[in-house]
Amino acid sequence: MSSRVNASYFPQAERVAIFGGTHGNEMSGVTLVNMWIKNRAEIERSGVAVRAFITNPRAVEKCSRYIDTDLNRAFTPENLSTASGDGLPYEVQRAKEVNQIFGPKGSPDAYDVIFDLHNTTSNMGSTLILESSTDYFNLQMVHYIKKAIAPESCMVLLNEHPHLKYATTRSVAKHPVGLEVGPQPQGVLRSNIFESMRAIMKHALDFIELFNSGVEFPACSVEVFRVHERVDYPRDTNGNITAMVHPHLQDCDWEPLNPGDPMFQTFDGRTIPYEGASPVYPTFINEAAYYEKQQACITTRRETLAANAIRKISK
Amino acid sequence: MSSRVNASYFPQAERVAIFGGTHGNEMSGVTLVNMWIKNRAEIERSGVAVRAFITNPRAVEKCSRYIDTDLNRAFTPENLSTASGDGLPYEVQRAKEVNQIFGPKGSPDAYDVIFDLHNTTSNMGSTLILESSTDYFNLQMVHYIKKAIAPESCMVLLNEHPHLKYATTRSVAKHPVGLEVGPQPQGVLRSNIFESMRAIMKHALDFIELFNSGVEFPACSVEVFRVHERVDYPRDTNGNITAMVHPHLQDCDWEPLNPGDPMFQTFDGRTIPYEGASPVYPTFINEAAYYEKQQACITTRRETLAANAIRKISK
Repeated sequence: MSSRVNASYFPQAERVAIFGGTHGNEMSGVTLVNMWIKNRAEIERSGVAVRAFITNPRAVEKCSRYIDTDLNRAFTPENLSTASGDGLPYEVQRAKEVNQIFGPKGSPDAYDVIFDLHNTTSNMGSTLILESSTDYFNLQMVHYIKKAIAPESCMVLLNEHPHLKYATTRSVAKHPVGLEVGPQPQGVLRSNIFESMRAIMKHALDFIELFNSGVEFPACSVEVFRVHERVDYPRDTNGNITAMVHPHLQDCDWEPLNPGDPMFQTFDGRTIPYEGASPVYPTFINEAAYYEKQQACITTRRETLAANAIRKISK
Repeated sequence: MSSRVNASYFPQAERVAIFGGTHGNEMSGVTLVNMWIKNRAEIERSGVAVRAFITNPRAVEKCSRYIDTDLNRAFTPENLSTASGDGLPYEVQRAKEVNQIFGPKGSPDAYDVIFDLHNTTSNMGSTLILESSTDYFNLQMVHYIKKAIAPESCMVLLNEHPHLKYATTRSVAKHPVGLEVGPQPQGVLRSNIFESMRAIMKHALDFIELFNSGVEFPACSVEVFRVHERVDYPRDTNGNITAMVHPHLQDCDWEPLNPGDPMFQTFDGRTIPYEGASPVYPTFINEAAYYEKQQACITTRRETLAANAIRKISK
């Protein structure tokens, strides 16, 4: 049984959380999580406690991304270790609370898995976001999900970038998983996006139930798109944008962009090409929330990761 | 010359304004107007003074729909006649300022034409919004625009409804024209939507220039969609929505909805049909900004309006 020899062993995933409303205007996660808080039958699985949770209730109430600062960038060691107090931005205070309930981040007491549900205005379809290329539990889970929802597609974005990785809400867990589904405008609930997100969560929880029951998942490979660079809009000296995403690039998330391909279109109709040295796969193209982050898209590189077989540690 | 006998005569349109940023997160109008403020060559026409103007600069700065209240509902007689003071909501104060510069509303001193540029998250394409079925100047203008941009389409929404008509920013002018282009998420600038709006404004200004030059526009007919009813989302007793726009209706703005057709889909998968007595044409389907207005869509009825020939009054 050679697969057994090479298998990686993980403890049973006993505590799982599903977060909605990390950004208060991303309505699929807000609506699903509120629905599951009222009636948890759909997310119950044997051998695991699954908790649905609204992470940024004030932003949800206001239907805005955040109140003071982006919660999904707030889980830094500095924020999590700072003293509580009235002067803290709302989301920093909230990050400390979330960390207390579901963490502490990096500790043995942290939740096993946290799914954080997001929407994007970009044409990204369903995208699972991972933070480590060596977390075989997560790689096996996304492999399982991709197979289960075929022929529908589900992409995997890997953000291990030394500078572009950020301190996500889900990073409190041992196995953090982001789920980003689009295109959907902020503040809007579309049935197709809602059902796509719901289907992926079903398969994710099924995987955890199977894993906990003792099923061994054999070694596999997973195609991922690794975060490579952030690309800003062209801007004038005052910081105002001077060009739009080119119509040939708009909505073409995950498609190859080759050197010389049109990337931006200036207001007077001039085309600005992609000037990189080699093909990339852009994503988060023209996402509403990223104008303030000086980001017109991120480029990625496609690669195939190998995942060891995994199995639960016998008690 | 029978057309001459029946022509309606209007004074030359000497002062025209183009408003952007009435809603600060509707980026096509914000961007075009800011562009035209910097360089007005594109909107200059002989015989008319055209002024580009940002109506809600604080909302634009914040990239939000409004600060205190919806500016595009604020031009009521009560607001416009109330005394200025520190306690006023920002948009009420701003409405009074706009009315002072471009009005007073209903007076001979008011601007001749105001175009107000909007975006929608709904799949409405390009839509001109009129407030009167007997304003032949405006009917002739939209007829001209529709012909000029063919084979691209431009719909005309007529809001003369006794209860659903609202006190728009553009209502300050003698001839108010709304331009609504979508789908575009709030906070996003898409090149296709930007260029559609720009093309319509070009033809609108061309029409005014021709009219001012003395051209007579012969009698014509215009297909419009008249606002009929507002339809809310199904809600529970706490006011929370319990169903989404049905996938068969989503994105189908301007298409006929017949009695019995699917209208909403509940979270547990049940279909709620349209229960009206006769076909309607829904629009503003699932618009982000209308959740707070308890509006999933508005229904309209299609009709054809006749417009007299128009000609400028000779000096």
